[in-house]
Amino acid sequence: MSDSMTVNIGICGLGTVGQGVWKHLTANRADLERRVGVKLNLARAAVRDLRKTRAVKIPAAKLTDDSFSIANDPSIHIVCELIGGTKLAREVTLTALRHGKIVVSANKALICEHGAEIISTARKHGGHFFFEASVAGGIPIIKAIREGLVANHFPRIYGILNGTCNYILTQMEDQDAPYADVLAEAKRLGYAEADESLDVDGWDTAHKAAVLAWLAHGRWVKTDQMIVEGISRITPADFKNASVLGYGIKLLAVITRDFKRDELSVRVHPTLLPEGNVIANVSGVFNAVSVTGDVVGTTLYSGRGAGQDATASAVISDIADAASLLKHGKGAHLLGEADESVPTCRLAPPENIRCRYYLRLTVKDEPGVLARVASVMARHRISIASVIQNPSEYSGAASLVLTTHESNERAMQRTLRQLKALGSVLEDPVLLRIGDFE
Amino acid sequence: MSDSMTVNIGICGLGTVGQGVWKHLTANRADLERRVGVKLNLARAAVRDLRKTRAVKIPAAKLTDDSFSIANDPSIHIVCELIGGTKLAREVTLTALRHGKIVVSANKALICEHGAEIISTARKHGGHFFFEASVAGGIPIIKAIREGLVANHFPRIYGILNGTCNYILTQMEDQDAPYADVLAEAKRLGYAEADESLDVDGWDTAHKAAVLAWLAHGRWVKTDQMIVEGISRITPADFKNASVLGYGIKLLAVITRDFKRDELSVRVHPTLLPEGNVIANVSGVFNAVSVTGDVVGTTLYSGRGAGQDATASAVISDIADAASLLKHGKGAHLLGEADESVPTCRLAPPENIRCRYYLRLTVKDEPGVLARVASVMARHRISIASVIQNPSEYSGAASLVLTTHESNERAMQRTLRQLKALGSVLEDPVLLRIGDFE
Repeated sequence: MSDSMTVNIGICGLGTVGQGVWKHLTANRADLERRVGVKLNLARAAVRDLRKTRAVKIPAAKLTDDSFSIANDPSIHIVCELIGGTKLAREVTLTALRHGKIVVSANKALICEHGAEIISTARKHGGHFFFEASVAGGIPIIKAIREGLVANHFPRIYGILNGTCNYILTQMEDQDAPYADVLAEAKRLGYAEADESLDVDGWDTAHKAAVLAWLAHGRWVKTDQMIVEGISRITPADFKNASVLGYGIKLLAVITRDFKRDELSVRVHPTLLPEGNVIANVSGVFNAVSVTGDVVGTTLYSGRGAGQDATASAVISDIADAASLLKHGKGAHLLGEADESVPTCRLAPPENIRCRYYLRLTVKDEPGVLARVASVMARHRISIASVIQNPSEYSGAASLVLTTHESNERAMQRTLRQLKALGSVLEDPVLLRIGDFE
Repeated sequence: MSDSMTVNIGICGLGTVGQGVWKHLTANRADLERRVGVKLNLARAAVRDLRKTRAVKIPAAKLTDDSFSIANDPSIHIVCELIGGTKLAREVTLTALRHGKIVVSANKALICEHGAEIISTARKHGGHFFFEASVAGGIPIIKAIREGLVANHFPRIYGILNGTCNYILTQMEDQDAPYADVLAEAKRLGYAEADESLDVDGWDTAHKAAVLAWLAHGRWVKTDQMIVEGISRITPADFKNASVLGYGIKLLAVITRDFKRDELSVRVHPTLLPEGNVIANVSGVFNAVSVTGDVVGTTLYSGRGAGQDATASAVISDIADAASLLKHGKGAHLLGEADESVPTCRLAPPENIRCRYYLRLTVKDEPGVLARVASVMARHRISIASVIQNPSEYSGAASLVLTTHESNERAMQRTLRQLKALGSVLEDPVLLRIGDFE
């Protein structure tokens, strides 16, 4: 394909992101074409409802309600899968890849569930699958890990990958407001979905963590192989306690690799981060990722993690990379795509996932309770680092906040089960991890 | 070039960075080769003194004291120019490029002074010039701007690009210590060069700013076309005053583009940054860059800006990109390299470079001084926002700290000249810019 040739792009799905891609690619087309060195033609778009009016005006002749007619169209070089969901999106993606096309996707759930199948289909048929927009919106984190930091192994990657949760946590902290109130307000403002569970229970973050873990370590980790905990049980009191201890609270994805044991751990949980940590200060809908490489040390990336424009920026960068690749010819592949036979690592067993813990218990306000709690913890060799006792919101009850020295998930989960069984513990304990990261 | 072929790499210059590249490329070779899909052979290295002992052991047969023998060697595909300086480095770079080789460089002074010549030579002979390591060490900021954010125009890029200055400023603030003491300690620890002027007077930052400005805006800006001011006149009192006003102080490169006027401004100066700004909290030898794109919004990148390992990480990522490019064949080019005819923009005149200012004057402690100072400022329509008056370290003198509402460089430079001429102003005024950036 020479400089004077045209790359034809089909967009499947014209929701918020699809319209953003169409809009910005149209507005910046001349600059993009100059940078990439080929003509970029937005050839076709597939929508669910042909009669719906949209903010972005597209000639009727370019519209179809059949995504497969784009995936199967021999004149289309690049298919942007912006449909969402994992059923139709998977079929359209695989169809396009079987034709050797390049697919650009922002769909983290799709990649998390079907990544292995998608990547192997791309390889088999000489297609390519690009997914910069799937993690951390407009931040070019995929490219950073895959190309910019190619010289590195990654002992630790962690960060804020869900803007909805970070918005809610930031508001709870700043306004001293309970979770339910902030969530309701976030829904009203359009920062949270009507069904918020994908976000607040950590699943969206887990999908993105799976993508990053695969990129950095070459292994697909399913969400049921991770610890995944959400933010719905955090209270304003937790922020106050954390602040007294010198911490903020963030929902983090944490991906750690122990190269000596050759073990990988992927987890999603609310985490106490030291107030001086830059990520503890990333607020609102912003995302931030800390990437520690064995050569480069720790690098940090932040920006808007979602929204039409930020996501479109990432999708368009993939389109530019794809067009540049097409210019090089079909046989080419990108950095990282050659990586077909990565040595596998095993998943870390719970006893090797270690950190300090923050534990909040609602207990009967009576003598001997702390002794009973402490004795359960001692049984599992969990050493207490600090204790804060406050009156509870319930009468006759107290709130007991304990932090521990370093322990591990196996010991802590056993401890939790025994604590729950104590008659003097009135509610399920709230467990937060402490992230003493640099 | 097929998968089974070998890319031969020559390293010119085996100082700290060169040895780091040799060490890490050797240690991580298997992983890198798998990711790139070609064999990587560290074929030769050029040193100044063949007899010098080095931490990294290299077979004598691979060593030469003639960089040109590597630049002219037909078997070498990639030449890493890690010599430093701008004379020999330029000649070696141009020689290699004239042979159509790929040159990887960490040399910001070279690029700043001779970038236009180097890039045009690369284009003319089908060579390529990569320079990820030249700005912000291991942070993949070049790749982010050139590829990851390719969909964007850049109204503002700013950041900390010199770790030595940031270390000195951080120590001055944390230890309440004068500049000279901290500089001496930095030299003792190896964080500052014996001749510190390149760093502390802002020239190293200016070289890097020129590279970023060219990448983002396609225009080479010479350092004598920039405002370049260093950190040597900042005192612990400035940190205290800034803190009272809610700011920290950082040496920043600031690159702004006014797309309506089509004007570009590149400047380097100590800047008051709001305490809540993430970059205000980046301390020690770390670098950080904020990139605002018209599509993506503001994204941020931070990490170690210098040192053997971080710089080697960036050089090796360029080697990997170069090897991947060679695999595609000679005609290929990277994203951004097609960009040969960028529309030019003009440099902003001083009256269009606008910000708020912090001005510290050492004045005679006598009646009427504030009135005289204020009247000079009023003459240039500079509106005073706040005044702090403190006793000066000199007897009979006072320290007068003024902040202004938004003004511009022309008005401020005229004001400064007239203030200096006042008999009651005892020292050259200290001028800091206020960066009310998001």
